[in-house]
Amino acid sequence: MVPVLSAHARVTATLVLLLSMLSLAAGGKLLVVPVDGSHWLSMREVLDGLKQKGHEIVVVAPEITLHIKPTKNFVMKTYPVPFTQEELDRTFWRTGQNAFEEGSFLERFFKTRELVKNTSALFLSTCSHLLYNKELVTYLKESQFDAVFTDPFLPCGPILAEHLSLPSVFILQRLPCDLDLQATQCPSPPSYVPRAFTDHTDRMNFLQRVRNLIYDIPNYFLCNFVFQPYATLASEFLQRDVTVMDLLRQASIWLLRRDFVFQYPRPLMPNMVMVSGVTCAHKKLTQEFEAIVNASGEHGIVVFSLGSMVSEIPMKKAEEIADALGSVPQTVWFPSPNSSTAIQCSFQIHYMITFPFWSHPKARAFITHGGSHGIYEGICNAVPMVLMPLFGDQMDNAKQIESRGAGLTLNILEMTSQDISTALKAVINDKKYKENIKRLSELHLDRPIHPLDLAVHWVEFVMKHKGAPHLRPAAHDLNWIQYHSLDVIAFLLAVVLLSLFISLKCCLFCCRRCCSKKGRARKPTKAKSH
Amino acid sequence: MVPVLSAHARVTATLVLLLSMLSLAAGGKLLVVPVDGSHWLSMREVLDGLKQKGHEIVVVAPEITLHIKPTKNFVMKTYPVPFTQEELDRTFWRTGQNAFEEGSFLERFFKTRELVKNTSALFLSTCSHLLYNKELVTYLKESQFDAVFTDPFLPCGPILAEHLSLPSVFILQRLPCDLDLQATQCPSPPSYVPRAFTDHTDRMNFLQRVRNLIYDIPNYFLCNFVFQPYATLASEFLQRDVTVMDLLRQASIWLLRRDFVFQYPRPLMPNMVMVSGVTCAHKKLTQEFEAIVNASGEHGIVVFSLGSMVSEIPMKKAEEIADALGSVPQTVWFPSPNSSTAIQCSFQIHYMITFPFWSHPKARAFITHGGSHGIYEGICNAVPMVLMPLFGDQMDNAKQIESRGAGLTLNILEMTSQDISTALKAVINDKKYKENIKRLSELHLDRPIHPLDLAVHWVEFVMKHKGAPHLRPAAHDLNWIQYHSLDVIAFLLAVVLLSLFISLKCCLFCCRRCCSKKGRARKPTKAKSH
Repeated sequence: MVPVLSAHARVTATLVLLLSMLSLAAGGKLLVVPVDGSHWLSMREVLDGLKQKGHEIVVVAPEITLHIKPTKNFVMKTYPVPFTQEELDRTFWRTGQNAFEEGSFLERFFKTRELVKNTSALFLSTCSHLLYNKELVTYLKESQFDAVFTDPFLPCGPILAEHLSLPSVFILQRLPCDLDLQATQCPSPPSYVPRAFTDHTDRMNFLQRVRNLIYDIPNYFLCNFVFQPYATLASEFLQRDVTVMDLLRQASIWLLRRDFVFQYPRPLMPNMVMVSGVTCAHKKLTQEFEAIVNASGEHGIVVFSLGSMVSEIPMKKAEEIADALGSVPQTVWFPSPNSSTAIQCSFQIHYMITFPFWSHPKARAFITHGGSHGIYEGICNAVPMVLMPLFGDQMDNAKQIESRGAGLTLNILEMTSQDISTALKAVINDKKYKENIKRLSELHLDRPIHPLDLAVHWVEFVMKHKGAPHLRPAAHDLNWIQYHSLDVIAFLLAVVLLSLFISLKCCLFCCRRCCSKKGRARKPTKAKSH
Repeated sequence: MVPVLSAHARVTATLVLLLSMLSLAAGGKLLVVPVDGSHWLSMREVLDGLKQKGHEIVVVAPEITLHIKPTKNFVMKTYPVPFTQEELDRTFWRTGQNAFEEGSFLERFFKTRELVKNTSALFLSTCSHLLYNKELVTYLKESQFDAVFTDPFLPCGPILAEHLSLPSVFILQRLPCDLDLQATQCPSPPSYVPRAFTDHTDRMNFLQRVRNLIYDIPNYFLCNFVFQPYATLASEFLQRDVTVMDLLRQASIWLLRRDFVFQYPRPLMPNMVMVSGVTCAHKKLTQEFEAIVNASGEHGIVVFSLGSMVSEIPMKKAEEIADALGSVPQTVWFPSPNSSTAIQCSFQIHYMITFPFWSHPKARAFITHGGSHGIYEGICNAVPMVLMPLFGDQMDNAKQIESRGAGLTLNILEMTSQDISTALKAVINDKKYKENIKRLSELHLDRPIHPLDLAVHWVEFVMKHKGAPHLRPAAHDLNWIQYHSLDVIAFLLAVVLLSLFISLKCCLFCCRRCCSKKGRARKPTKAKSH
């Protein structure tokens, strides 16, 4: 961004800087309660940014983790948990494998339900072991932090923030069952805001709108299955009745990894800050990799990754993918953080973290599961995508990218080798995909401030001002009936009906009086005539 | 703002800069259709910022104006209008005077109505003379602008943008009758979003919520009075039927001079950008003025201004104000752009534009009419306020400042000398007012990017990308019934009722069959028994 060098801007910016330097002169103290898995990637970037601003950062994490590892940028306080690394790896591995398992809808529903139940139990036990770790919680209490920075996907951070009476900043893409929208009191009209898992865009026909509205109903019950145990845990721990919604509502700022470049525009609330692309990087390859990528010649490379949850693809599926990848002249890359050499046309899939292959100008296509981090890397680097969504929000992400004409979606269970080959050739050779993703990329990158600076600013804001109560809508103080003005409407209806009733009664009364008067008036006349 | 010096941020920022420099290398061309009066102040600041980014700016304005004067930062194209400078000044003077005129509610209503009618007719005629100035419009058509930057308070700019098929950026505080919220499809629940002129805060009791909801109804009719003539003019000029709402809906970006620091938090839409405080400046006084201000000693100064519309205060009111101002030890200032000397304790009121007196550390209080520019200057410089709202949004602004504990509101018609004196002494001597405004000021100034840079960015964005369609919600394609899902609810109700009806009928049918069978079964038995 080119700063406007007006006297006002310069002087005000200097004053703001001075103020901020004065109030957080020695740096603030931030408590971080992360969520493991790919969720950690964005949070880690923001922590790096905060460390550069001189803050002291303490991350609390279980002793056994997938991706959360200590770095020089924060102090890591760990606590024991009742499972081993193998058990954790196995749980994540099973979640990845579940996406490839075929069967009837009901079979898959119950299998997924069982899996979610087991994974949730593991996470809940982790949370419980943090909260009831007296030594750690006492240390946290005595440390006098300025704020809590957490991912509310698992509401352990919000419980801790409540216990320590600290303001909190959340970072997330979205919460299941639109809990984030409910907790922020954000309007979400079902007429044009598509619900999760509906496969709808923001332009729906009548029947789609009916389906979209109906989808809201099971949401109220389904999420209880995962979140109710946290409410019980929180109520026990805080020694008063609280719901998960009570906890989520306390957040001062919601840093949302969303962008209307590919997501559908919808209402926002003042404490929602869009920070999609915090991990977006134009990193340079090492000389060794650069040489291998350049060797791909005019055809360039295709990057393949099904994300951090998939460490193995079933043999039959792998063979189908292999056949398809063999049908294009591009060199195929499976980035891995551990390998120092490229794995060309091999079907051993390594677990993947942010890696700079697709930011190379020779990247022609990105085969992805549609996780939000991968999607933003694709948009950031303008690489068209073939999407093979596996679970969670990936179906919706894939649909959105497809609806923008920047990629093609395949059904991981039903796709054949021919389908993959056709889709891959289309996104590589049909110029419209490249043009569309380039347009999205230009819009995504053209922002007044880098999303990482924005995220860092708002975390610092909450630390400095002890929250952001001026951004909290008064809607939080209303119940559902009051919020929707149903009591007011009922009252006005009652007034109107009562007025009508009284008017009617008055009219009838007057009519009767008139009639009876006429009656009486006629009678004496009759009498006289006698 | 201290930039986070991460590799990502730096590299991405550089790339964005390069992209922006490439696409708008020689600078873009911007057409500006301003609104006269205080509205021009914010727009002029943004134009200064845009000029510094190398853009060519053409402002179209009538030959006769109040504040819109040429500067070195833009080319001004004027067009003749059928009124003289005296007539224009007189119209504005009468609007200012009207605020001081006493009388019954009905008398004042009809007087104000007449005044609005006359002022509107003058503005409408100005717009008509712009649109039907063939030479000017042909020049504008041939000039190939990238975008239109306008204030939709008078929808002349939007008509021109539609005629020239150009994307547009609006700058405004709010539109009468919440037209801005309707045009952006922004939800505005009457349960906690107070309507204009209601005197409500965002926390309302039941009866206030009833009143707030009822206030929506006349809005649908009242605004037609001012805006319908523009719809007629637009339909004639564009040679097709258009409403003012159709025109307003076309805006790519709405730059809103609002801030939740003093306004009540409420939902927003993706194409709304908050740029309050673009005029906020910590300007230095000249040495001459500095010396006079410093001579005020420990008591400091009080700044008095009733805005650009009030050039004269009726004698009786002036005397009351004079008495009150004489009761405090502070030196009172009436800033005027034309005077080179301070006017101390004089009651000749000069018309005022942004002037740096209240940014002086010696400023103890600001007596203001509550116009948005003055309010933001007060917040920006942390000066507590005594508010004497005159018309328009000033009542609501004053109420909001008062509800934040940063000032006191007086009724300009009913206030006595004693009231003014008491209020002034309170905001000067009661520390809570200074503390509250200081807190508001800190929150207001602690932003990730200066509002002027933000405004300039979004105007450039629209120029570069020919609009911002990715921020336009699909709600624009729905009618009122569809938006509120009333058709879907009716359909679902019909389905439920029909299902109930069919189930009931089935039950009844089954019952009858059972009964009749039993009946038939019993009958033969009876027959046998015979």
